This record gives sequence, structure tokens and C-alpha cells, in this order.
Amino acid sequence: MLFTDLIEKKKKGLALDTEEISFWIKGYVDGTIPDYQVSALLMAIIFQGMDDRETLDLTMAMMHSGDVMDLSAIEGIKADKHSTGGVGDKTSLVLGPMTAACGVRLAKMSGRGLGFTGGTLDKLESIPGFQVGLAPEDFVRQVNELGIAIIGQTGNLVPADKKMYALRDVTGTVNSIPLIASSIMSKKLAAGSDVIVLDVKYGQGAFMKTVEDARKLAETMIRIGRGAGRRVRAMISSMEAPLGCAIGNALEVQEAVMTLMGQGPQDLVELCVTAGSLILTEAGAAEDMAVAKEMLEKAVADGSALQKLEEMVKAQGGDVSVIRHPEKLEKAPCKTVVTSDRNGFINGADALALGRLAMQIGAGRATKEDDIWHDVGLVLNAKPGDHVEKGDPLVTVHHRQALTDDWMQALKGAFRIDPEAGELPPLIMDIL
Amino acid sequence: MLFTDLIEKKKKGLALDTEEISFWIKGYVDGTIPDYQVSALLMAIIFQGMDDRETLDLTMAMMHSGDVMDLSAIEGIKADKHSTGGVGDKTSLVLGPMTAACGVRLAKMSGRGLGFTGGTLDKLESIPGFQVGLAPEDFVRQVNELGIAIIGQTGNLVPADKKMYALRDVTGTVNSIPLIASSIMSKKLAAGSDVIVLDVKYGQGAFMKTVEDARKLAETMIRIGRGAGRRVRAMISSMEAPLGCAIGNALEVQEAVMTLMGQGPQDLVELCVTAGSLILTEAGAAEDMAVAKEMLEKAVADGSALQKLEEMVKAQGGDVSVIRHPEKLEKAPCKTVVTSDRNGFINGADALALGRLAMQIGAGRATKEDDIWHDVGLVLNAKPGDHVEKGDPLVTVHHRQALTDDWMQALKGAFRIDPEAGELPPLIMDIL
Repeated sequence: MLFTDLIEKKKKGLALDTEEISFWIKGYVDGTIPDYQVSALLMAIIFQGMDDRETLDLTMAMMHSGDVMDLSAIEGIKADKHSTGGVGDKTSLVLGPMTAACGVRLAKMSGRGLGFTGGTLDKLESIPGFQVGLAPEDFVRQVNELGIAIIGQTGNLVPADKKMYALRDVTGTVNSIPLIASSIMSKKLAAGSDVIVLDVKYGQGAFMKTVEDARKLAETMIRIGRGAGRRVRAMISSMEAPLGCAIGNALEVQEAVMTLMGQGPQDLVELCVTAGSLILTEAGAAEDMAVAKEMLEKAVADGSALQKLEEMVKAQGGDVSVIRHPEKLEKAPCKTVVTSDRNGFINGADALALGRLAMQIGAGRATKEDDIWHDVGLVLNAKPGDHVEKGDPLVTVHHRQALTDDWMQALKGAFRIDPEAGELPPLIMDIL
Repeated sequence: MLFTDLIEKKKKGLALDTEEISFWIKGYVDGTIPDYQVSALLMAIIFQGMDDRETLDLTMAMMHSGDVMDLSAIEGIKADKHSTGGVGDKTSLVLGPMTAACGVRLAKMSGRGLGFTGGTLDKLESIPGFQVGLAPEDFVRQVNELGIAIIGQTGNLVPADKKMYALRDVTGTVNSIPLIASSIMSKKLAAGSDVIVLDVKYGQGAFMKTVEDARKLAETMIRIGRGAGRRVRAMISSMEAPLGCAIGNALEVQEAVMTLMGQGPQDLVELCVTAGSLILTEAGAAEDMAVAKEMLEKAVADGSALQKLEEMVKAQGGDVSVIRHPEKLEKAPCKTVVTSDRNGFINGADALALGRLAMQIGAGRATKEDDIWHDVGLVLNAKPGDHVEKGDPLVTVHHRQALTDDWMQALKGAFRIDPEAGELPPLIMDIL
């Protein structure tokens, strides 16, 4: 088989067959097919797409390019959750303890963030001592015993995606629904859970800019997951504004803990309860969404969800005292409150802009090599839908270095404040 | 400037600006932009194309990526000719001596062939002793003194094209008119001639399969050449059937010599006279095509064109005796005559098939590393338009090894012989 024939085929808009896709992924991982041929094929896919069968074949070929987690030693149904990423998204930190408290085990492998703020691993590492590097057997034991573990990727999972994602990132070939779907799903399938709940974001602060694209991506991932025999659900949720109020690693952990204490921002609570309900119903732990919602709310109200977080932090070596005293996480040396310069309704808080501003003061990485400061970030004092008077606090900046005028100007510019209240999009657009 | 931004721009169908194209070519040649990024951009160009300004910019950037020949030491107008390549195309060997005999200097750098048969260099090297490797100063002196030199690429001409063509060849990104046009024209411009005549082939045995594509390519190259201040003309000629009768290096030299002796096949003569007339008129050596034709025919009739070939062969170290006794070039140990198995009109001789068959017996290279046998090849005894009786010779095979049944079958299959005479396309479809 010649790889150039695959490129020619895709250029013409024809589908690659199962053997061809397997040849591509095997050859790319073992180094017999060079980067420059793969990037040409990827660009042809950007223009010509891939059908469902090809996308499933690609996902399975990538999944089998390395280790596949064996979670069979964990009793019962195992659940996993994936978000396509957004600004202020600390859902995993809240959702996992909630579902675990309701008896559904969450076995989650997370990544580090590139861009606006850190990933879930970076957030967890803002808890002093927290270890994200567990061996596969320790991971399995912890999920079995506590019902929850959140760790970094363990073993040699999906090396094909690792190598290909790095290539896509520098060749303008990221933005393709079949490629995005197979990248995400190959990792979710290799991670071994039975139930997978996907949170596909759309909007300014998300990778998918429109609801339509988010829906297409969600549908593609659902078909892949079901094609591979898993139970998969998806939410389409808005990332026009940041999720919750905190943006920045320790600040987000603090907000997650507050949420598990019953004092979370309304949007974050809604998203976690919805995702949790999907997990509970798919796992068979609740007969319907209403029952699931009640169970999850009770787990917050009675403190059992917070206790699960505490158990996980303890098991993974973290300082448990920050869970009972989350204000301890607020450590950045400087705190600047930015106020509104007029009266009006907040009709928008630009997630993309706020994410970038947080990154610029050190909350996120622009490149893989960048360091991250766990303590810096933003906390919104007002959210879209709120009314503010001139002089009311808009956002509190936790920072280490002096803030420039340009940065401050951009921060104010991220808020749209009008005399009349505008219409705000629903947080959850659809459930698939 | 980030190369990924160029890729994104082209993906969206936007034009790259002059600085961006220069950044691309400089970075690719100096190694700061890797193959895998360039192949992604090339594939985006396959889908989105390039406009005239981009194509000219790309050509100029490639031209200036290395040495540019300075032919100013050569008196008068310097002409060059390029054919997009075809089966049995020995035009340069005939045309050069003809125009030189008419006083227009031909300074030609040729390539080696990949595919059906050798390139012009391989053909010339079938003359014992012939040297294709001249230093630039020797090249210039020979053109000045004799009016003609045909050599291999000298100096570090257009390294960008060399590197990028090798990449295109293995990434499915050859087939794009702006990329083909800029590849050819960057070399022609760097070679320094004032007048450039292009022979753009179409048909089964050519790179461009249709007249329309050939015309588009010709028009693009003309716009580039004129944009760079050169005098450029083009012919669109058919490559449905081989040009002339001989396919194979020494056999083609023999046919070229016979043509300069006034005994050439009609199609080859027509093509050489037309190309020569374009050169003579553009160079100002003839006032119109009719006068030019007369001059060229006279140069053949009075032996001055053949003498020019002889002078060139002598100057470049070749055995001149083969020019006066071209039958000496026919040296392959075996000669097999294939005859017609029916009566009828030859309505087609598949150039692509015949080219491949010649390559299979050693006349051409499948890969750059392959050796070539100069003495093997095919000579058509009958051409499209001819009538044959059963048992009449169709083609004579000059070979070194036994011919297989499959090969013989394929050879016969390359001829279409019908009871009625079919319509044959004109050799020269258009002159631009």
C-alpha cells in the first residue's frame, strides 16, 4: 500500500477504507510514514471531510495504537466526562464528587491546558501536595475504593493522537469535525469507561463558534461512542460568557469547593447537575433525570459530595485543609477590584477576551513550555443578566505583577453594559 | 510572521501577499519552515488555488532562492524552449540546431527524465563521450561561439523548486496549475534567456489530460513570463500518440539526426518548425511565421542545421561520427518486429502505454536511482492515420532481454486498428 494513493483518494473526495486507515495510523506511529505526508492527508481531510465509517475506523485505529485501560477490576458502571473546553470550566471538580457520592464511579484522566487557563490537572495541582501521576493499578484501586480519581494520562494511551495532534496544531489542520471527534473519542474509549458524557461548548470562548458546529461535533462523537459499544450522551452548552465566576487555577478550585458547599454560581450548578443527571441515568443509578437531580442536590446538601472531594484529595496526597477552608487558596499578593463606569445591565462578558486576559497575567500557558501561576486569575463580581450601578465591582483581579493600562482597558472592554437588559442565550442549548 | 497563519489564510481561500510568499520560500530553503508545514500549505493550494499575482510572486521567490544565470556576455537575443514532456519528444535536439543555424542562440538547460523515457540529457548521453556538465562560463562561451549548448543544470539554480518538487512528488500536491507553472517558470527565468517558447502537451501521454488544462497552464506561464519581462509564446500540442516514431534515448537521437537530414517524421518536423518559427519571430530574426518557416526549412535543406548539431556534439566531447552515421546508434542486441494481426486504419497509438512499455524494457527510470539503457526502445513502423494490412510491421522493439507475453500483448493493445479511418486530432491545437 502506498500512502500517496491514500492522499490522492482523499483529494478526490473518496472514503478511505478500514485497511487504509489502519495502515496510516500504524505507519505514522512506527515512523514509516513521515509527518509531511500525514499533514498533506490531514489538509485534504479538512477540505473533503470523512464519513461516519471512516471517522469510527480512525478512532478505533488511534485507540488501539497504544495501551487501552482495563477497568474491569472496578465494580459496577464506570463513568467519564469530557468537556471540549472553555473559560472558567471547573465542572469535573464538582461533578465527579457529586456522582461518586451518588454511587456512580468516575474514572477520569485529564489533560493540562494550553491557552486561556490551566486544564483540570493544573487546577488540582493548586492544592498543595496533590498528585496527578498515579500508576494504572493505583488508579483502578482508588476508583474502586472511593468512587473517584482524577489523574493525568497514565501508560502509553493513544500515542497516535498525541503525535497527530502535535502535527495538526502546527499545520492548520485542527479545525475538522471528524478529526476533532476521533481525537477526543479515541482517548475516551482507551480510558475504558462504560458511560461517557460530553459537554460540547459553543460560542466566543469555545473551539466551536456556532451551535450548529457544536451539535455536529456532538452527534459525530455520539455515533463513534455508540459504534464502539459505549453509552454516550452530550450537552450543547454556551461558552459566550465564562462558566461560573472564577477564572484561574486555585480560584477555580475554590469556586468548585464553594459549589460543593451549596454556594456555587447558578450556571455552574446547573451544568454540573445536568451532566451528573445524564451520568446517573445512563449508569442506571437513577430512573429519570428528575430523580437524578434530586439525588445530586441531596449529595450537595448533606455534604457527602464535598466529603468525596476531600477523600480524593487525601488519597492523592493533597492538603485537605483547603477543602474545609477554601479561602486559603486565595493567595496572590495583589488584588485589584475593577468597577463599572456606568449604570446598566451586563449583556455580555466576552469569554474569549477574559480567558486571554487571565492567560496574560499568568493563569494559562501560551506554549507547552510556559510556566503557570496557580494563584492568579479573575473573579467576576457581576455576570451577564446582572444590573450594576456606576462604581459597583465588575471583576476582581488576583495578580502578581503590575497591571498595564492596556490590559485594564481590555478587561473593561470585555463587559457589555447597556441601559436595557438584553436577551441572554440559555446555558444548555440542547441535550443529545 | 507565523507560517501557520499562511496556512490558515490559504485554507480560507485568501491570497498570500508578496512578503508572505517570500517568507515561505526563504524559510523552506533555509530549513526554518519544516516539510510538514509546507506540505499542508501545498495541499491547501491544491484546493484553493493561487491568483496570478501570487503565482508570479511564488515564481520570483523561487527564482531568487539560488543562483540566476547571467547570460549578458552572450551577444544578441537568447532563446530557450521548454516542453511539459511527452513520449518520444526529442524536439530540443532538432529545434536547437535549427534556430542556431538561423542565427538565434539557444541556451538550454535540461533535466533528466523520470518516467517513460529519459530526458534530453539522457538522450544526449547516448552519444558516446557527450558531456552535459559544463561550468557556467563554458556554457556561456559555447552559446556565444556556436549559438547552441544543451547542458544539465549548472550552479545552484532554483534550490527552492528542487526541494519543493521532491516534497510535492510524495504528498499528492503535484497537480496544481499555479504550482506547476511556477515550478517550470522559476527555472526558465533563472536560466536567463530573453525568449521562452513553451510546448504544453495535452492528452493520454501528457501530464495535462485535457486541452483546457493545457491551455490554462500555458496561459498562466505566459502571464508569469511576461510579468517578469520576458518574451513568451506557447503551443498547445497533442500527446495522444508519441511524437515521431522513436521512443528510447539513442533511437530518439537517431531520429533527431534523420530529421535534421530532412528525413524526419511529419509530426516532429511540424512541431520543430512551429516552435522554431515562434523563436525566430520573437527574437526578431524573422518578420513573420512564414518567413521563419522558410528560413528553418532552408537550414535543414542546406545542411547548416545538422552542422550545428555536429559542432555542439564536438564541443561537448561527443563522438561526431554518429551524427553522419546515425545508424551506428542502433545497438541493442535484440530487435523484434511486431506485426498487425488485421487489416485496417490505425486510429490510435496510446502514448502513455507505449511510454510505459519502453520504460519497462529499460528506456526510462521508475525511480531516480534506476539505471537507464540508452540503446533500448521502440520504433513505430506505422503511425495514427496509416493504413496497415495483416502482417505489416507495427513497431520494432530494440531490447536487451526476452520480451514477456504480457508485455507483447500490451504492446499490441496500445494500437487501435479499425476498419474505418477515424478522425485524428491536429498535432498543434493552438498557438498562444
